[in-house]
Amino acid sequence: MSFMEALRGAWRRNTSLVCVGLDPDLAKLPACVKSKKNPIFEFNKALVDATLDLVCCYKPQAAYYAGQGADEELLMTIKYIKGRCPDVPVILDAKRADIGSTSEMYAKEAFDRYGADALTVNPYMGMDALKPFLDRKDKGVVILCRTSNAGAKEIQELKVEGTELYKHVARMAATTWNYNSNVLLVTGATCPEELGEVRRIVGDSVPLLVPGVGAQGGDLEKVLEYGLNKEGNGLAINSSRGIIYASKGDDFAEAARKATLELRDAINSLSGV
Amino acid sequence: MSFMEALRGAWRRNTSLVCVGLDPDLAKLPACVKSKKNPIFEFNKALVDATLDLVCCYKPQAAYYAGQGADEELLMTIKYIKGRCPDVPVILDAKRADIGSTSEMYAKEAFDRYGADALTVNPYMGMDALKPFLDRKDKGVVILCRTSNAGAKEIQELKVEGTELYKHVARMAATTWNYNSNVLLVTGATCPEELGEVRRIVGDSVPLLVPGVGAQGGDLEKVLEYGLNKEGNGLAINSSRGIIYASKGDDFAEAARKATLELRDAINSLSGV
Repeated sequence: MSFMEALRGAWRRNTSLVCVGLDPDLAKLPACVKSKKNPIFEFNKALVDATLDLVCCYKPQAAYYAGQGADEELLMTIKYIKGRCPDVPVILDAKRADIGSTSEMYAKEAFDRYGADALTVNPYMGMDALKPFLDRKDKGVVILCRTSNAGAKEIQELKVEGTELYKHVARMAATTWNYNSNVLLVTGATCPEELGEVRRIVGDSVPLLVPGVGAQGGDLEKVLEYGLNKEGNGLAINSSRGIIYASKGDDFAEAARKATLELRDAINSLSGV
Repeated sequence: MSFMEALRGAWRRNTSLVCVGLDPDLAKLPACVKSKKNPIFEFNKALVDATLDLVCCYKPQAAYYAGQGADEELLMTIKYIKGRCPDVPVILDAKRADIGSTSEMYAKEAFDRYGADALTVNPYMGMDALKPFLDRKDKGVVILCRTSNAGAKEIQELKVEGTELYKHVARMAATTWNYNSNVLLVTGATCPEELGEVRRIVGDSVPLLVPGVGAQGGDLEKVLEYGLNKEGNGLAINSSRGIIYASKGDDFAEAARKATLELRDAINSLSGV
Protein backbone atom coordinates (compact mmCIF):
# COMPACT_ATOMS: atom_id res chain seq x y z
CA MET A 1 0.00 0.00 0.00
CA SER A 2 1.41 3.41 -0.95
CA PHE A 3 1.63 6.30 1.48
CA MET A 4 -1.16 8.15 -0.33
CA GLU A 5 -3.48 5.13 -0.15
CA ALA A 6 -2.70 4.67 3.53
CA LEU A 7 -3.37 8.32 4.30
CA ARG A 8 -6.69 8.30 2.42
CA GLY A 9 -7.65 5.06 4.16
CA ALA A 10 -6.88 6.49 7.59
CA TRP A 11 -8.82 9.70 6.86
CA ARG A 12 -11.90 7.59 6.14
CA ARG A 13 -11.49 4.81 8.69
CA ASN A 14 -10.75 7.06 11.65
CA THR A 15 -12.79 10.04 10.39
CA SER A 16 -9.76 12.07 11.34
CA LEU A 17 -7.49 14.71 9.85
CA VAL A 18 -5.27 14.71 12.94
CA CYS A 19 -1.56 14.01 12.66
CA VAL A 20 0.16 13.47 16.00
CA GLY A 21 3.68 14.89 16.11
CA LEU A 22 6.03 12.68 18.11
CA ASP A 23 8.63 15.23 19.26
CA PRO A 24 9.69 13.84 22.64
CA ASP A 25 12.00 16.05 24.67
CA LEU A 26 13.68 13.99 27.42
CA ALA A 27 13.61 16.99 29.75
CA LYS A 28 9.81 17.11 29.54
CA LEU A 29 8.90 13.45 29.88
CA PRO A 30 6.70 12.33 32.78
CA ALA A 31 8.41 10.60 35.67
CA CYS A 32 6.79 7.23 34.97
CA VAL A 33 8.53 6.88 31.58
CA LYS A 34 11.70 8.78 32.45
CA SER A 35 12.82 5.96 34.74
CA LYS A 36 12.43 3.28 32.05
CA LYS A 37 15.17 1.88 29.85
CA ASN A 38 14.03 3.50 26.59
CA PRO A 39 12.08 6.48 27.89
CA ILE A 40 11.47 8.10 24.51
CA PHE A 41 10.19 4.88 23.03
CA GLU A 42 8.03 4.12 26.07
CA PHE A 43 6.55 7.62 25.86
CA ASN A 44 5.78 7.23 22.15
CA LYS A 45 4.41 3.71 22.61
CA ALA A 46 1.91 4.89 25.20
CA LEU A 47 0.93 7.84 22.98
CA VAL A 48 0.39 5.55 19.98
CA ASP A 49 -1.64 3.07 22.02
CA ALA A 50 -3.81 5.93 23.25
CA THR A 51 -4.46 7.59 19.89
CA LEU A 52 -4.20 5.05 17.05
CA ASP A 53 -7.93 5.01 16.28
CA LEU A 54 -8.12 8.81 16.23
CA VAL A 55 -5.41 9.87 13.78
CA CYS A 56 -4.63 9.86 10.06
CA CYS A 57 -0.86 9.68 10.53
CA TYR A 58 2.04 10.07 12.94
CA LYS A 59 4.92 12.46 12.43
CA PRO A 60 8.10 11.85 14.44
CA GLN A 61 10.43 14.86 14.25
CA ALA A 62 13.91 13.56 13.39
CA ALA A 63 15.74 16.34 15.25
CA TYR A 64 14.44 15.19 18.65
CA TYR A 65 15.90 11.73 18.12
CA ALA A 66 19.16 12.88 16.49
CA GLY A 67 19.68 15.62 19.06
CA GLN A 68 19.23 13.26 21.99
CA GLY A 69 21.13 10.27 20.58
CA ALA A 70 17.89 8.30 20.32
CA ASP A 71 18.16 6.89 16.79
CA GLU A 72 17.37 3.42 18.07
CA GLU A 73 14.24 4.69 19.80
CA LEU A 74 13.09 6.33 16.57
CA LEU A 75 13.46 2.98 14.83
CA MET A 76 11.62 1.21 17.66
CA THR A 77 8.83 3.78 17.49
CA ILE A 78 8.25 3.42 13.76
CA LYS A 79 8.42 -0.39 14.01
CA TYR A 80 5.93 -0.26 16.85
CA ILE A 81 3.49 1.83 14.82
CA LYS A 82 3.88 -0.55 11.84
CA GLY A 83 3.10 -3.53 14.06
CA ARG A 84 0.29 -1.96 16.07
CA CYS A 85 -1.55 -0.06 13.34
CA PRO A 86 -0.04 -0.94 9.95
CA ASP A 87 -2.62 1.14 8.10
CA VAL A 88 -1.62 4.41 9.78
CA PRO A 89 1.27 5.97 7.83
CA VAL A 90 4.35 7.56 9.37
CA ILE A 91 5.86 10.82 8.11
CA LEU A 92 9.46 11.34 9.16
CA ASP A 93 9.85 15.09 9.60
CA ALA A 94 13.49 15.75 8.71
CA LYS A 95 13.40 18.48 6.02
CA ARG A 96 16.13 16.88 3.95
CA ALA A 97 17.56 17.63 0.48
CA ASP A 98 21.03 17.77 -1.02
CA ILE A 99 22.71 17.06 -4.37
CA GLY A 100 21.30 13.89 -5.97
CA SER A 101 23.83 11.32 -4.77
CA THR A 102 23.50 12.63 -1.22
CA SER A 103 19.71 12.77 -1.31
CA GLU A 104 19.87 9.07 -2.28
CA MET A 105 21.50 8.45 1.09
CA TYR A 106 18.81 10.50 2.85
CA ALA A 107 16.14 8.44 1.07
CA LYS A 108 17.84 5.33 2.41
CA GLU A 109 17.88 6.84 5.89
CA ALA A 110 14.17 7.68 5.94
CA PHE A 111 12.63 4.87 3.95
CA ASP A 112 15.01 1.89 4.30
CA ARG A 113 16.72 2.38 7.64
CA TYR A 114 13.77 3.80 9.57
CA GLY A 115 10.91 2.46 7.44
CA ALA A 116 9.03 5.77 7.23
CA ASP A 117 6.23 6.08 4.67
CA ALA A 118 6.88 9.73 3.90
CA LEU A 119 9.53 12.38 4.46
CA THR A 120 9.50 16.17 4.66
CA VAL A 121 11.95 17.82 2.24
CA ASN A 122 13.23 21.32 1.49
CA PRO A 123 12.85 22.77 -2.03
CA TYR A 124 15.68 25.34 -1.96
CA MET A 125 18.06 23.17 -4.02
CA GLY A 126 15.55 22.48 -6.81
CA MET A 127 14.12 19.34 -8.33
CA ASP A 128 17.23 17.23 -8.88
CA ALA A 129 17.80 17.34 -5.13
CA LEU A 130 14.28 15.99 -4.58
CA LYS A 131 14.28 13.38 -7.35
CA PRO A 132 15.67 10.52 -5.24
CA PHE A 133 12.66 11.01 -2.94
CA LEU A 134 10.10 11.63 -5.70
CA ASP A 135 11.26 8.50 -7.52
CA ARG A 136 10.06 6.38 -4.61
CA LYS A 137 6.51 6.26 -5.86
CA ASP A 138 5.07 4.42 -2.87
CA LYS A 139 6.47 7.00 -0.48
CA GLY A 140 5.08 10.44 0.30
CA VAL A 141 7.27 13.47 -0.35
CA VAL A 142 6.17 16.40 1.78
CA ILE A 143 7.71 19.57 0.36
CA LEU A 144 8.09 22.71 2.47
CA CYS A 145 5.99 25.43 0.88
CA ARG A 146 4.78 28.09 3.36
CA THR A 147 6.00 27.11 6.80
CA SER A 148 4.38 28.08 10.09
CA ASN A 149 7.25 30.03 11.70
CA ALA A 150 7.35 33.83 11.89
CA GLY A 151 10.53 34.10 9.80
CA ALA A 152 9.06 32.06 6.94
CA LYS A 153 7.92 35.16 5.09
CA GLU A 154 11.47 36.57 4.85
CA ILE A 155 12.17 34.09 2.06
CA GLN A 156 8.93 32.35 1.15
CA GLU A 157 6.91 35.51 0.55
CA LEU A 158 9.50 37.25 -1.59
CA LYS A 159 7.98 38.14 -4.94
CA VAL A 160 9.48 36.07 -7.73
CA GLU A 161 8.37 36.95 -11.22
CA GLY A 162 5.25 38.65 -9.90
CA THR A 163 4.20 36.00 -7.41
CA GLU A 164 5.37 34.87 -3.98
CA LEU A 165 8.07 32.22 -3.85
CA TYR A 166 5.87 29.80 -1.90
CA LYS A 167 3.27 29.94 -4.67
CA HIS A 168 5.94 29.25 -7.23
CA VAL A 169 7.06 26.24 -5.18
CA ALA A 170 3.43 25.08 -4.91
CA ARG A 171 3.04 25.27 -8.69
CA MET A 172 6.25 23.37 -9.41
CA ALA A 173 5.49 20.80 -6.72
CA ALA A 174 1.99 20.08 -7.98
CA THR A 175 3.02 19.80 -11.64
CA THR A 176 6.60 19.00 -12.71
CA TRP A 177 7.65 17.49 -9.40
CA ASN A 178 4.50 15.39 -8.95
CA TYR A 179 5.20 12.83 -11.70
CA ASN A 180 4.49 9.99 -9.29
CA SER A 181 1.47 11.65 -7.64
CA ASN A 182 3.24 11.37 -4.30
CA VAL A 183 3.72 15.03 -3.40
CA LEU A 184 2.28 16.78 -0.34
CA LEU A 185 3.01 20.34 0.78
CA VAL A 186 3.72 21.88 4.17
CA THR A 187 1.54 24.95 4.73
CA GLY A 188 1.26 26.42 8.20
CA ALA A 189 -1.93 26.94 10.16
CA THR A 190 -0.44 30.27 11.25
CA CYS A 191 -1.01 31.65 7.72
CA PRO A 192 -4.42 30.31 6.62
CA GLU A 193 -4.84 32.78 3.76
CA GLU A 194 -1.58 31.57 2.23
CA LEU A 195 -2.73 28.01 2.84
CA GLY A 196 -5.85 28.84 0.85
CA GLU A 197 -3.73 30.19 -1.99
CA VAL A 198 -1.79 26.93 -2.01
CA ARG A 199 -5.02 24.90 -2.13
CA ARG A 200 -6.20 26.95 -5.13
CA ILE A 201 -2.90 26.38 -6.93
CA VAL A 202 -2.50 22.65 -6.30
CA GLY A 203 -6.13 21.58 -6.65
CA ASP A 204 -7.85 18.88 -4.64
CA SER A 205 -5.53 15.93 -5.01
CA VAL A 206 -2.39 17.24 -3.29
CA PRO A 207 -2.67 16.85 0.50
CA LEU A 208 -1.40 19.59 2.78
CA LEU A 209 0.51 18.87 5.97
CA VAL A 210 -0.48 21.63 8.36
CA PRO A 211 1.69 22.37 11.39
CA GLY A 212 1.06 25.28 13.70
CA VAL A 213 -2.23 24.63 15.51
CA GLY A 214 -1.85 24.53 19.29
CA ALA A 215 1.43 25.89 20.67
CA GLN A 216 2.12 27.96 17.55
CA GLY A 217 -1.34 29.59 17.61
CA GLY A 218 -2.77 28.68 14.19
CA ASP A 219 -6.41 29.31 13.32
CA LEU A 220 -8.19 25.97 12.91
CA GLU A 221 -11.43 27.37 11.57
CA LYS A 222 -9.73 29.23 8.75
CA VAL A 223 -7.44 26.30 7.97
CA LEU A 224 -10.53 24.19 7.31
CA GLU A 225 -12.38 26.93 5.47
CA TYR A 226 -9.47 27.49 3.10
CA GLY A 227 -7.76 24.11 3.05
CA LEU A 228 -10.28 21.29 2.81
CA ASN A 229 -10.62 19.73 -0.62
CA LYS A 230 -13.95 18.88 -2.24
CA GLU A 231 -14.05 15.50 -0.50
CA GLY A 232 -13.76 17.23 2.85
CA ASN A 233 -10.27 15.98 3.56
CA GLY A 234 -6.87 16.63 1.92
CA LEU A 235 -5.34 17.86 5.18
CA ALA A 236 -3.13 16.32 7.83
CA ILE A 237 -3.36 18.77 10.71
CA ASN A 238 -0.43 18.27 13.02
CA SER A 239 -0.39 18.81 16.74
CA SER A 240 2.69 17.90 18.73
CA ARG A 241 3.06 19.72 22.03
CA GLY A 242 -0.70 20.22 22.42
CA ILE A 243 -1.19 16.46 22.46
CA ILE A 244 1.97 14.84 23.78
CA TYR A 245 2.29 17.24 26.71
CA ALA A 246 -1.46 17.63 27.34
CA SER A 247 -0.55 16.43 30.83
CA LYS A 248 2.91 16.50 32.31
CA GLY A 249 1.99 13.81 34.80
CA ASP A 250 1.73 10.06 34.65
CA ASP A 251 -1.71 10.37 33.05
CA PHE A 252 -0.08 11.80 29.89
CA ALA A 253 -1.43 9.07 27.58
CA GLU A 254 -4.97 9.49 28.78
CA ALA A 255 -4.65 13.27 28.45
CA ALA A 256 -3.18 12.84 24.96
CA ARG A 257 -6.17 10.75 23.94
CA LYS A 258 -8.51 13.41 25.25
CA ALA A 259 -6.63 16.19 23.44
CA THR A 260 -6.56 14.21 20.19
CA LEU A 261 -10.26 13.46 20.45
CA GLU A 262 -11.02 17.13 21.09
CA LEU A 263 -8.95 18.23 18.11
CA ARG A 264 -10.48 15.58 15.86
CA ASP A 265 -14.00 16.48 16.94
CA ALA A 266 -13.37 20.21 16.64
CA ILE A 267 -12.12 19.64 13.09
CA ASN A 268 -15.05 17.41 12.21
CA SER A 269 -17.57 19.74 13.73
CA LEU A 270 -16.12 22.77 11.89
CA SER A 271 -16.05 20.82 8.61
CA GLY A 272 -19.60 19.58 9.09
CA VAL A 273 -18.67 15.88 9.33
CA MET B 1 39.11 28.62 19.70
CA SER B 2 36.16 29.53 17.48
CA PHE B 3 35.49 27.85 14.15
CA MET B 4 36.47 31.01 12.27
CA GLU B 5 39.79 31.28 14.14
CA ALA B 6 40.51 27.60 13.50
CA LEU B 7 39.74 27.94 9.80
CA ARG B 8 41.93 31.02 9.43
CA GLY B 9 44.71 29.28 11.34
CA ALA B 10 44.54 26.20 9.13
CA TRP B 11 44.55 28.32 5.94
CA ARG B 12 47.82 29.86 7.07
CA ARG B 13 49.49 26.90 8.75
CA ASN B 14 48.85 24.41 5.96
CA THR B 15 48.90 26.99 3.14
CA SER B 16 45.75 25.26 1.99
CA LEU B 17 42.23 26.11 0.91
CA VAL B 18 41.34 22.42 0.52
CA CYS B 19 38.41 20.91 2.41
CA VAL B 20 38.26 17.13 2.25
CA GLY B 21 34.72 15.78 2.07
CA LEU B 22 34.32 12.58 4.05
CA ASP B 23 31.38 10.94 2.24
CA PRO B 24 32.17 7.23 2.61
CA ASP B 25 29.91 4.86 0.66
CA LEU B 26 30.25 1.32 2.04
CA ALA B 27 29.77 -0.11 -1.45
CA LYS B 28 32.85 1.74 -2.68
CA LEU B 29 35.31 1.13 0.14
CA PRO B 30 38.58 -0.68 -0.60
CA ALA B 31 38.83 -4.34 0.44
CA CYS B 32 41.40 -3.65 3.15
CA VAL B 33 39.00 -1.51 5.20
CA LYS B 34 35.77 -3.28 4.23
CA SER B 35 36.79 -6.31 6.25
CA LYS B 36 37.43 -4.32 9.45
CA LYS B 37 35.01 -3.84 12.32
CA ASN B 38 34.23 -0.17 11.68
CA PRO B 39 35.00 0.12 7.96
CA ILE B 40 33.74 3.68 7.55
CA PHE B 41 35.75 4.91 10.51
CA GLU B 42 38.88 3.02 9.41
CA PHE B 43 38.55 4.53 5.93
CA ASN B 44 38.16 8.05 7.35
CA LYS B 45 40.99 7.55 9.84
CA ALA B 46 43.42 6.59 7.10
CA LEU B 47 42.26 9.54 4.99
CA VAL B 48 42.75 11.97 7.88
CA ASP B 49 46.20 10.57 8.70
CA ALA B 50 47.19 10.99 5.06
CA THR B 51 45.94 14.55 4.59
CA LEU B 52 45.91 16.43 7.91
CA ASP B 53 48.83 18.73 7.03
CA LEU B 54 47.34 19.60 3.64
CA VAL B 55 43.81 20.79 4.44
CA CYS B 56 41.99 23.71 6.01
CA CYS B 57 39.02 21.63 7.19
CA TYR B 58 37.17 18.34 6.93
CA LYS B 59 33.54 18.00 5.92
CA PRO B 60 31.76 14.75 6.75
CA GLN B 61 28.43 14.48 4.90
CA ALA B 62 25.79 13.48 7.46
CA ALA B 63 23.64 11.60 4.93
CA TYR B 64 26.30 8.96 4.32
CA TYR B 65 26.39 8.11 8.02
CA ALA B 66 22.64 8.35 8.61
CA GLY B 67 21.82 6.39 5.45
CA GLN B 68 24.15 3.56 6.37
CA GLY B 69 23.41 3.38 10.09
CA ALA B 70 26.91 4.64 10.88
CA ASP B 71 26.17 7.33 13.48
CA GLU B 72 28.74 5.87 15.82
CA GLU B 73 31.38 5.96 13.09
CA LEU B 74 30.62 9.62 12.43
CA LEU B 75 31.20 10.33 16.10
CA MET B 76 34.41 8.29 16.08
CA THR B 77 35.60 10.15 12.99
CA ILE B 78 35.05 13.60 14.45
CA LYS B 79 36.63 12.56 17.76
CA TYR B 80 39.59 11.18 15.87
CA ILE B 81 40.10 14.44 13.96
CA LYS B 82 39.86 16.42 17.23
CA GLY B 83 42.52 14.21 18.81
CA ARG B 84 44.84 13.97 15.84
CA CYS B 85 44.70 17.54 14.55
CA PRO B 86 42.73 19.70 17.01
CA ASP B 87 43.41 22.85 15.01
CA VAL B 88 41.68 21.59 11.85
CA PRO B 89 37.97 22.36 12.10
CA VAL B 90 35.16 19.98 11.12
CA ILE B 91 32.08 21.08 9.18
CA LEU B 92 29.14 18.70 9.49
CA ASP B 93 27.33 18.89 6.16
CA ALA B 94 23.71 18.22 7.04
CA LYS B 95 21.76 21.15 5.56
CA ARG B 96 19.45 21.48 8.57
CA ALA B 97 16.84 24.07 9.59
CA ASP B 98 13.38 23.91 11.12
CA ILE B 99 11.21 25.99 13.46
CA GLY B 100 13.25 27.37 16.34
CA SER B 101 12.60 24.73 18.99
CA THR B 102 13.44 22.00 16.49
CA SER B 103 16.56 23.75 15.19
CA GLU B 104 17.71 23.80 18.84
CA MET B 105 17.68 20.01 18.70
CA TYR B 106 19.62 20.03 15.41
CA ALA B 107 22.19 22.35 17.02
CA LYS B 108 22.53 19.81 19.83
CA GLU B 109 22.95 17.04 17.26
CA ALA B 110 25.73 18.77 15.33
CA PHE B 111 27.61 20.63 18.04
CA ASP B 112 27.00 18.71 21.28
CA ARG B 113 26.41 15.12 20.20
CA TYR B 114 28.90 14.99 17.33
CA GLY B 115 31.21 17.83 18.36
CA ALA B 116 31.30 19.49 14.93
CA ASP B 117 32.72 23.01 14.68
CA ALA B 118 30.34 24.13 11.94
CA LEU B 119 27.13 23.01 10.26
CA THR B 120 25.59 23.59 6.84
CA VAL B 121 22.04 24.98 7.03
CA ASN B 122 19.21 25.77 4.62
CA PRO B 123 17.79 29.33 4.48
CA TYR B 124 14.30 28.54 3.08
CA MET B 125 12.58 28.90 6.47
CA GLY B 126 14.12 32.30 7.26
CA MET B 127 16.18 33.65 10.10
CA ASP B 128 14.30 32.36 13.15
CA ALA B 129 14.96 28.84 11.90
CA LEU B 130 18.70 29.62 11.79
CA LYS B 131 18.93 31.52 15.06
CA PRO B 132 19.69 28.50 17.28
CA PHE B 133 22.73 27.89 15.07
CA LEU B 134 23.75 31.54 14.68
CA ASP B 135 23.56 32.02 18.45
CA ARG B 136 26.42 29.57 18.91
CA LYS B 137 29.05 32.20 18.32
CA ASP B 138 32.02 29.82 18.43
CA LYS B 139 30.47 27.61 15.76
CA GLY B 140 30.41 28.22 12.02
CA VAL B 141 27.04 28.44 10.27
CA VAL B 142 27.38 27.60 6.60
CA ILE B 143 24.26 28.82 4.81
CA LEU B 144 23.24 27.42 1.42
CA CYS B 145 23.35 30.26 -1.09
CA ARG B 146 23.99 29.13 -4.68
CA THR B 147 24.49 25.38 -4.66
CA SER B 148 26.48 23.37 -7.19
CA ASN B 149 23.72 21.11 -8.56
CA ALA B 150 22.06 21.66 -11.93
CA GLY B 151 18.59 22.16 -10.42
CA ALA B 152 19.80 24.90 -8.08
CA LYS B 153 18.85 27.63 -10.52
CA GLU B 154 15.16 26.59 -10.54
CA ILE B 155 14.75 28.26 -7.15
CA GLN B 156 17.96 30.12 -6.33
CA GLU B 157 18.10 32.14 -9.55
CA LEU B 158 14.49 33.25 -9.50
CA LYS B 159 14.33 37.03 -9.58
CA VAL B 160 13.09 38.44 -6.29
CA GLU B 161 12.55 42.16 -6.19
CA GLY B 162 14.85 42.67 -9.16
CA THR B 163 17.67 40.41 -8.03
CA GLU B 164 18.24 36.67 -7.89
CA LEU B 165 17.16 34.86 -4.74
CA TYR B 166 20.68 33.61 -3.98
CA LYS B 167 21.93 37.21 -3.97
CA HIS B 168 19.16 38.17 -1.60
CA VAL B 169 20.17 35.28 0.68
CA ALA B 170 23.81 36.40 0.45
CA ARG B 171 22.86 39.92 1.47
CA MET B 172 20.74 38.80 4.45
CA ALA B 173 23.35 36.26 5.51
CA ALA B 174 26.21 38.74 5.48
CA THR B 175 24.30 41.45 7.36
CA THR B 176 21.27 40.68 9.57
CA TRP B 177 22.09 37.01 10.06
CA ASN B 178 25.80 37.56 10.73
CA TYR B 179 25.45 39.18 14.17
CA ASN B 180 28.05 36.82 15.61
CA SER B 181 30.41 37.00 12.61
CA ASN B 182 30.09 33.25 12.25
CA VAL B 183 28.39 32.96 8.86
CA LEU B 184 29.82 31.23 5.78
CA LEU B 185 28.03 30.64 2.48
CA VAL B 186 27.84 27.65 0.16
CA THR B 187 28.53 28.70 -3.43
CA GLY B 188 29.23 26.05 -6.06
CA ALA B 189 32.34 25.82 -8.21
CA THR B 190 30.00 24.90 -11.07
CA CYS B 191 28.75 28.50 -11.21
CA PRO B 192 31.86 30.67 -10.70
CA GLU B 193 30.22 33.87 -12.02
CA GLU B 194 27.52 33.56 -9.38
CA LEU B 195 30.21 32.82 -6.82
CA GLY B 196 31.87 36.09 -7.83
CA GLU B 197 28.56 37.92 -7.35
CA VAL B 198 28.34 36.48 -3.86
CA ARG B 199 31.90 37.57 -3.04
CA ARG B 200 31.06 41.11 -4.18
CA ILE B 201 27.94 41.17 -1.99
CA VAL B 202 29.43 39.72 1.20
CA GLY B 203 32.83 41.39 1.10
CA ASP B 204 36.09 39.84 2.22
CA SER B 205 35.30 38.59 5.70
CA VAL B 206 32.65 35.96 4.94
CA PRO B 207 34.25 32.66 3.85
CA LEU B 208 32.72 30.65 1.05
CA LEU B 209 32.44 26.86 1.15
CA VAL B 210 32.83 25.74 -2.44
CA PRO B 211 31.66 22.27 -3.47
CA GLY B 212 31.68 21.06 -7.06
CA VAL B 213 35.30 20.80 -8.15
CA GLY B 214 36.24 17.30 -9.28
CA ALA B 215 33.33 14.91 -9.95
CA GLN B 216 30.87 17.78 -10.46
CA GLY B 217 33.11 19.53 -12.98
CA GLY B 218 33.60 22.98 -11.44
CA ASP B 219 36.11 25.46 -12.84
CA LEU B 220 38.92 25.93 -10.30
CA GLU B 221 40.63 28.79 -12.10
CA LYS B 222 37.49 30.90 -12.20
CA VAL B 223 36.58 30.01 -8.62
CA LEU B 224 39.88 31.52 -7.51
CA GLU B 225 39.68 34.49 -9.85
CA TYR B 226 36.21 35.42 -8.59
CA GLY B 227 36.22 34.04 -5.06
CA LEU B 228 39.49 34.81 -3.28
CA ASN B 229 39.36 37.65 -0.81
CA LYS B 230 41.99 40.37 -0.56
CA GLU B 231 44.10 38.23 1.76
CA GLY B 232 44.19 35.48 -0.85
CA ASN B 233 42.02 33.10 1.13
CA GLY B 234 38.35 33.19 2.20
CA LEU B 235 37.55 29.89 0.47
CA ALA B 236 37.20 26.30 1.59
CA ILE B 237 37.26 24.36 -1.67
CA ASN B 238 35.75 20.95 -1.10
CA SER B 239 36.65 17.76 -2.88
CA SER B 240 35.09 14.49 -1.81
CA ARG B 241 35.04 11.78 -4.49
CA GLY B 242 38.13 13.17 -6.25
CA ILE B 243 40.16 12.61 -3.09
CA ILE B 244 38.61 9.76 -1.12
CA TYR B 245 38.25 7.53 -4.18
CA ALA B 246 41.45 8.66 -5.94
CA SER B 247 42.33 4.97 -5.82
CA LYS B 248 39.83 2.17 -5.33
CA GLY B 249 42.59 -0.13 -4.12
CA ASP B 250 44.36 -0.63 -0.84
CA ASP B 251 46.62 2.34 -1.63
CA PHE B 252 43.62 4.69 -1.26
CA ALA B 253 45.19 6.76 1.53
CA GLU B 254 48.40 7.34 -0.38
CA ALA B 255 46.39 8.23 -3.50
CA ALA B 256 44.21 10.57 -1.42
CA ARG B 257 47.32 12.36 -0.16
CA LYS B 258 48.57 12.74 -3.71
CA ALA B 259 45.20 14.06 -4.94
CA THR B 260 44.96 16.50 -2.00
CA LEU B 261 48.48 17.72 -2.61
CA GLU B 262 47.75 18.21 -6.31
CA LEU B 263 44.58 20.15 -5.58
CA ARG B 264 46.29 22.27 -2.92
CA ASP B 265 49.22 23.02 -5.22
CA ALA B 266 46.97 23.75 -8.21
CA ILE B 267 45.03 26.22 -6.06
CA ASN B 268 48.19 27.84 -4.70
CA SER B 269 49.78 28.05 -8.10
CA LEU B 270 46.67 29.63 -9.65
CA SER B 271 46.41 32.09 -6.75
CA GLY B 272 50.09 32.98 -6.98
CA VAL B 273 50.99 31.64 -3.51
